[in-house]
Amino acid sequence: MAETLWGKGAALDAVIHRFTVGDDPVVDLALTPHDALGSAAHARMLGKVGLLKPEESRALVGALKTLHDEARAGHFTIRPEQEDGHTALEAALVERVGEPGKRIHLARSRNDQVLLAVRLLLREEVLALGAGAVKLAEAFLDFAQAHAHVAMPGYTHLRRAMPSTFGMWGMAFAEGLLEELEALRGVWGRLDRCPLGAAAGFGVPLPIDREYVAQLLGFSRVQRSPIDAQNGRGRHESAVLGWACSVAGTLEKWLWDVQLYSTDEFGFLGLPDAFTTGSSIMPQKKNPDVVELARGRCRELRGLAHQVEAVAGGLPSSYHRDFQLLKRPTFAALASSRALLDVLSRLVPVLQVKADAAARACDDTLYAAHHAYTLVAGGQAFRDAYRQVGRELSDGTFHPDREALTATHLGGAGNLGLPQAREELAAARAWLDDTHRALATATARVWDV
Amino acid sequence: MAETLWGKGAALDAVIHRFTVGDDPVVDLALTPHDALGSAAHARMLGKVGLLKPEESRALVGALKTLHDEARAGHFTIRPEQEDGHTALEAALVERVGEPGKRIHLARSRNDQVLLAVRLLLREEVLALGAGAVKLAEAFLDFAQAHAHVAMPGYTHLRRAMPSTFGMWGMAFAEGLLEELEALRGVWGRLDRCPLGAAAGFGVPLPIDREYVAQLLGFSRVQRSPIDAQNGRGRHESAVLGWACSVAGTLEKWLWDVQLYSTDEFGFLGLPDAFTTGSSIMPQKKNPDVVELARGRCRELRGLAHQVEAVAGGLPSSYHRDFQLLKRPTFAALASSRALLDVLSRLVPVLQVKADAAARACDDTLYAAHHAYTLVAGGQAFRDAYRQVGRELSDGTFHPDREALTATHLGGAGNLGLPQAREELAAARAWLDDTHRALATATARVWDV
Amino acid sequence: MAETLWGKGAALDAVIHRFTVGDDPVVDLALTPHDALGSAAHARMLGKVGLLKPEESRALVGALKTLHDEARAGHFTIRPEQEDGHTALEAALVERVGEPGKRIHLARSRNDQVLLAVRLLLREEVLALGAGAVKLAEAFLDFAQAHAHVAMPGYTHLRRAMPSTFGMWGMAFAEGLLEELEALRGVWGRLDRCPLGAAAGFGVPLPIDREYVAQLLGFSRVQRSPIDAQNGRGRHESAVLGWACSVAGTLEKWLWDVQLYSTDEFGFLGLPDAFTTGSSIMPQKKNPDVVELARGRCRELRGLAHQVEAVAGGLPSSYHRDFQLLKRPTFAALASSRALLDVLSRLVPVLQVKADAAARACDDTLYAAHHAYTLVAGGQAFRDAYRQVGRELSDGTFHPDREALTATHLGGAGNLGLPQAREELAAARAWLDDTHRALATATARVWDV
Amino acid sequence: MAETLWGKGAALDAVIHRFTVGDDPVVDLALTPHDALGSAAHARMLGKVGLLKPEESRALVGALKTLHDEARAGHFTIRPEQEDGHTALEAALVERVGEPGKRIHLARSRNDQVLLAVRLLLREEVLALGAGAVKLAEAFLDFAQAHAHVAMPGYTHLRRAMPSTFGMWGMAFAEGLLEELEALRGVWGRLDRCPLGAAAGFGVPLPIDREYVAQLLGFSRVQRSPIDAQNGRGRHESAVLGWACSVAGTLEKWLWDVQLYSTDEFGFLGLPDAFTTGSSIMPQKKNPDVVELARGRCRELRGLAHQVEAVAGGLPSSYHRDFQLLKRPTFAALASSRALLDVLSRLVPVLQVKADAAARACDDTLYAAHHAYTLVAGGQAFRDAYRQVGRELSDGTFHPDREALTATHLGGAGNLGLPQAREELAAARAWLDDTHRALATATARVWDV
Repeated sequence: MAETLWGKGAALDAVIHRFTVGDDPVVDLALTPHDALGSAAHARMLGKVGLLKPEESRALVGALKTLHDEARAGHFTIRPEQEDGHTALEAALVERVGEPGKRIHLARSRNDQVLLAVRLLLREEVLALGAGAVKLAEAFLDFAQAHAHVAMPGYTHLRRAMPSTFGMWGMAFAEGLLEELEALRGVWGRLDRCPLGAAAGFGVPLPIDREYVAQLLGFSRVQRSPIDAQNGRGRHESAVLGWACSVAGTLEKWLWDVQLYSTDEFGFLGLPDAFTTGSSIMPQKKNPDVVELARGRCRELRGLAHQVEAVAGGLPSSYHRDFQLLKRPTFAALASSRALLDVLSRLVPVLQVKADAAARACDDTLYAAHHAYTLVAGGQAFRDAYRQVGRELSDGTFHPDREALTATHLGGAGNLGLPQAREELAAARAWLDDTHRALATATARVWDV
Repeated sequence: MAETLWGKGAALDAVIHRFTVGDDPVVDLALTPHDALGSAAHARMLGKVGLLKPEESRALVGALKTLHDEARAGHFTIRPEQEDGHTALEAALVERVGEPGKRIHLARSRNDQVLLAVRLLLREEVLALGAGAVKLAEAFLDFAQAHAHVAMPGYTHLRRAMPSTFGMWGMAFAEGLLEELEALRGVWGRLDRCPLGAAAGFGVPLPIDREYVAQLLGFSRVQRSPIDAQNGRGRHESAVLGWACSVAGTLEKWLWDVQLYSTDEFGFLGLPDAFTTGSSIMPQKKNPDVVELARGRCRELRGLAHQVEAVAGGLPSSYHRDFQLLKRPTFAALASSRALLDVLSRLVPVLQVKADAAARACDDTLYAAHHAYTLVAGGQAFRDAYRQVGRELSDGTFHPDREALTATHLGGAGNLGLPQAREELAAARAWLDDTHRALATATARVWDV
Repeated sequence: MAETLWGKGAALDAVIHRFTVGDDPVVDLALTPHDALGSAAHARMLGKVGLLKPEESRALVGALKTLHDEARAGHFTIRPEQEDGHTALEAALVERVGEPGKRIHLARSRNDQVLLAVRLLLREEVLALGAGAVKLAEAFLDFAQAHAHVAMPGYTHLRRAMPSTFGMWGMAFAEGLLEELEALRGVWGRLDRCPLGAAAGFGVPLPIDREYVAQLLGFSRVQRSPIDAQNGRGRHESAVLGWACSVAGTLEKWLWDVQLYSTDEFGFLGLPDAFTTGSSIMPQKKNPDVVELARGRCRELRGLAHQVEAVAGGLPSSYHRDFQLLKRPTFAALASSRALLDVLSRLVPVLQVKADAAARACDDTLYAAHHAYTLVAGGQAFRDAYRQVGRELSDGTFHPDREALTATHLGGAGNLGLPQAREELAAARAWLDDTHRALATATARVWDV
Repeated sequence: MAETLWGKGAALDAVIHRFTVGDDPVVDLALTPHDALGSAAHARMLGKVGLLKPEESRALVGALKTLHDEARAGHFTIRPEQEDGHTALEAALVERVGEPGKRIHLARSRNDQVLLAVRLLLREEVLALGAGAVKLAEAFLDFAQAHAHVAMPGYTHLRRAMPSTFGMWGMAFAEGLLEELEALRGVWGRLDRCPLGAAAGFGVPLPIDREYVAQLLGFSRVQRSPIDAQNGRGRHESAVLGWACSVAGTLEKWLWDVQLYSTDEFGFLGLPDAFTTGSSIMPQKKNPDVVELARGRCRELRGLAHQVEAVAGGLPSSYHRDFQLLKRPTFAALASSRALLDVLSRLVPVLQVKADAAARACDDTLYAAHHAYTLVAGGQAFRDAYRQVGRELSDGTFHPDREALTATHLGGAGNLGLPQAREELAAARAWLDDTHRALATATARVWDV
């Protein structure tokens, strides 16, 4: 890493080539299947409006199908001298179908080719993230149901505060995810617009049919303004990452809880061996590395989102090459988010609840507010009851009746709202499944020449 | 600012008091009207379930109505020794209605009182931001329509690229805002859950009716999980600020464009005097301060959003006092966003389009791609046409027929899609108006004792 | 907050005025004393080079001294219609000394007036932050010395790992601060350049003496390039805030430790009542609000630093009005940092160490690595010893000799390095005192007409 | 990327392994040479204090030298199942020297092994970044000298303001870098402490000689506190990245200037072909991609720095596995910073100054302030002169004498301060060279068995 600046410089061309190409030959591999699909829809549209002959269009779609499948299987490569995946794809097309390959780029520009491929990728990722969130929300609901009545202290300010249950604790994260799943539709709405035809940002003076491409690819509509299509670079990535960060904000809390509750000092939870590692010098250690790395990834996501935001911001409208730098952090963040959801949905079901230790931590003081409420129920004003309990606590006469009152309102320990949550989850899953199926159908039709 | 550390320290109590109270006595003023409304709904619910007598409930609601109106009018104050607005409100209640004032806090905690007040404030702000975005989108549409056929260069990489129009330019920002207005409903969905009853984060062992409060305040439903209600601190603020940052990302581009196009060097736009200022030493200067400050506010918003995110993150679940620090950046960001939308919706209509200068900048080279497409229309392959145009450009024989082709596809210069955009805008406005009206009706009913 | 957008708009001029003025009439109050001092040095220089008459220069310096003292005492006000503190200061000068007041602005611009005032403020704040860090480092050293031999578990991954002491724990934060204090000199070096004479960013065509002003104000040198002087807006603020964030990164760890160690579950530390608060519904609670707010401020600082960075970035060189937005987050961050250092230096000395509870938490497993080392000392290879200890741990035969070995190397529990740390602290304090004294002397000379 | 969540899950162990290992097998390759060097110093110290036999120590150092050289040459690989580079290095040692390889880990832990390797890498990178900054500063000075008297407009608010020169413009960036080069020593001071011996964060109960290792590796001193050594994870990375971001903040301004000045509209600068690229559809385009990507990298750096900051923050003291996530963004940021300095130092010397176009842009209005100063020199008060010039400008009688006055003060167009800047640059270079040489000497001695 360190020698070059002290030594003699490399040749200018090589340096500049490396600087402009950057990581694209690696990063773009994730885009290629989407680029192939988008290109096929473009080829079909060109055929439909007569800018390509039917047999040209067919030949292109056929070759793109093969390239798509190869890319999905990890058998497509981009050579550094090809600079990016779009060039590599066009080169492969020309190699395989000859002359028509040179015509695929008619009526589009590299800029809207990237735009479309990124849009398709984001759409797919959003559905996958949604599926991951559904799976994890279900795990939390199952956990809450299984441990609905297992007592534990509820903490405020990280101090024992009021009686709670593992059921209440589990429900919190299920409900956080249900909110996210509903909000995901708002993110989807942003992505559900087809940018193709924006070209370099000012459209093309050819009779292309933007509505047809949009429909072929399963979009609800066209992103009309070509300038806005370019201005959307970064905006859509940020919307998806903003959602992922919001999810991570909720999961980070759970991971912190798990980290604390599984210490010797709290002792309410145990981690299965598969989720712990050892130390290189301390033979006794069982370290919660998976929990820590997952927690770290929640914070890392914020940095990745900032990177996207920083790169996209501070510029006039239309295309700037700076946008190339959006891809790396976006893809890294998506992969990280998916891994996070996956790993957590494996951890939640095997988390060991230590009911005895949790019960031991539920000392009488947790019932101070409850006891005051009992006095209120007996007619006392709350502020007076509060003061009486305070006195009892300080002179050692505090002996609350733990069973006198429970929270039976919606969301309370005695009424978690599991049925409502299950229903909302089913609705979220149905929407995701329907949407996924609709896209799969549309895609299959694109390939069907 | 600087002496204290070098000098003798202040008394501990005063220092700690100042540190814990912070800006609350000022910041909380924005919350007080919402706190009064939320407290009135709480009082009504306590009355309904029999935890307050009917006359107590009525007395509280009446006094809260007066306090609400005073706070809206700027006639409510919070004394530093009261620490925050919630204490000040309760004190004012006790002062005005006596005994029942001491009962208002029954079955809730300061934590869920803040939660509710912030939720109500965010809800109101989101509608106001939406209204501001509608107004600005309309200004952009009017601008696009008025200048639909005025030519200007389209830029990529900040270099002249293809023919464009002020119509295309204006449409870009209208469409960006239409996407935001649609996405705003997703943000609204997050806020449309009533947290009251979460208490300290574990509910209350009293027969409160959370659904009733939710309905009174015009919420679609209850935010069931009390722990999730606490975990939502920062999450909802971030959702709103994330939306505001996305809007600002689009507006920043417009502001940068205006800043560039109004230079002597570009010269396509003029700024009315009311939007410029002078220099303290250069008599000739007319500086675009309003544009620059608006642009700066777009970037400032990102920092405010990071502040909210930083404060909310890195913590276990449930309440922590750290959350107090969420209020200042949230309120500052909301005020800034509203000012931004307001000022821009005043600037767009009076922006001076300098058609002649813009036309002069539309040199022949802008038509290089168009000319290649003309050749393609005449049968040539695109890559060949591209090369021929390149040769013509370099040997000085490039004379494009500027009128030969125009972009007539949806979104092109010849087909901006104004009717569709107007329709979408009307839908956005209708949703905002309906929602606003529904809340106003609900609120009026709360006060109606 | 919410009515205006729904109602009828305010008059354009009032809206634009409010938008451009922003918070300046409040924010600038912190700048005024520095502006007065910088203006006095400017006036003396103008007198020296003959651009002002001696009596004009003297009259200005005299009036500025009075205004400086009034501003320090909080008796200076900026009226909204004056827009900013610089205008208010010039108006006050004209009011008090007449004609010469109109000449103070000769050979400078508002831009370099702000630059200089901010530089002087940052310089003063850096010294005050340094003094706060010295005081806190001393408190940590005293704590480490007082509890040097009190045992506590050392944690890795938040799991009990190896034997440690409160001495080791306290030393960690002293040493972190000593690193910061050394690094502070690098920050100081950035600030130690006088920008006056940059004017609007291109100098002035008058025979000003920049070296003389620099010397008068106690700067080591002139910041030569006028464009770089403008480009430094944000850069210097970020350097100071970056340092404050680094300090906060260390303190955040301490605060998190305190928060954990003072739980019922850990129980190693107690917080004095003055640093805790109660709950509005739970009579038993003693909440560590001060610790939480201090921890929150550490994270808040990052957001403020991002705000400065966001506002300063994304722009071409030279002055832009966007820079006005740098002041609010900078001053907020400085005030917050100072409060943080102040409050912590009050908390450290009164923190209650609960030696018994900490000793009880030091179970045998902490000595697993030690025991392995004992075996190594007896000739065994480390990997073999490690495995043997593992076996002993799992079959219940692990009985380490806790006294056999201690870490006597520099920094170990038996050799904390207190003398070296005290020496480094003394050097840091001496540098701060010398620098502070040199500035005070220079300042006194400026006023001495 | 997308199938797994919809399909059947992978086996738990594989998923968890992949999650915990992350990118380490690739990322750690950058660390391996440093790990080898640090391990060699550790081996020598173990030999010196008698924990290894002389021949064991010698064998280890010899093998580590070979491994170091292989790693530098890119011939070292880390297998995924080895998890990280430290394991791979130990495995290679055992393979090559047998039994002593198993003893290299005595008296250290993986945690302080990583710490040391990262510290050594940062130290090397800081010197390389410094060398890059020196080279670039020199290019700016040469540029300023070459074009010292070529006129161009000076801009404020992106509006023509006052007369300037390409010399003043070039000097601004040279001076910005000189400030950074001085500040770099402060960063170096933070790194110049040897952490080895911290072990897991609590030292080791063996008679290791920390001062000896520090001296062997060319450190000025030991980072005494083992807990602080762990707490420094992220702090040192942030210090280096903070510096890189500050440099990038200055360079971003230059890049933005170049981007603007090389437009058709400004036209003051030309970019050599080697620094531009073409368009896939517009034959006329010469796009400034290198400038845009470099500008984008300046902003990207901020995101990477936030990532480091986010991962490091929000945690109690001592080691947490979250820290593993610090490596990727740190190394990416370092590589990016170096490429930025390298590419810019190649661009500055070949930038084409278009003196005629720049001169044409220097219209009379630039001299408005100058003209006012001429009137002042003739005895008029500045405010009166300012008003007179304003009148002349508006009634068309403004005819300034452009030659009457020039800025001859230090830093002005007539007195750039090149000699002082050259001197400061020489001092910076000398410090870097001396430091580099001292480290090279120390390193050579480590290997010299």
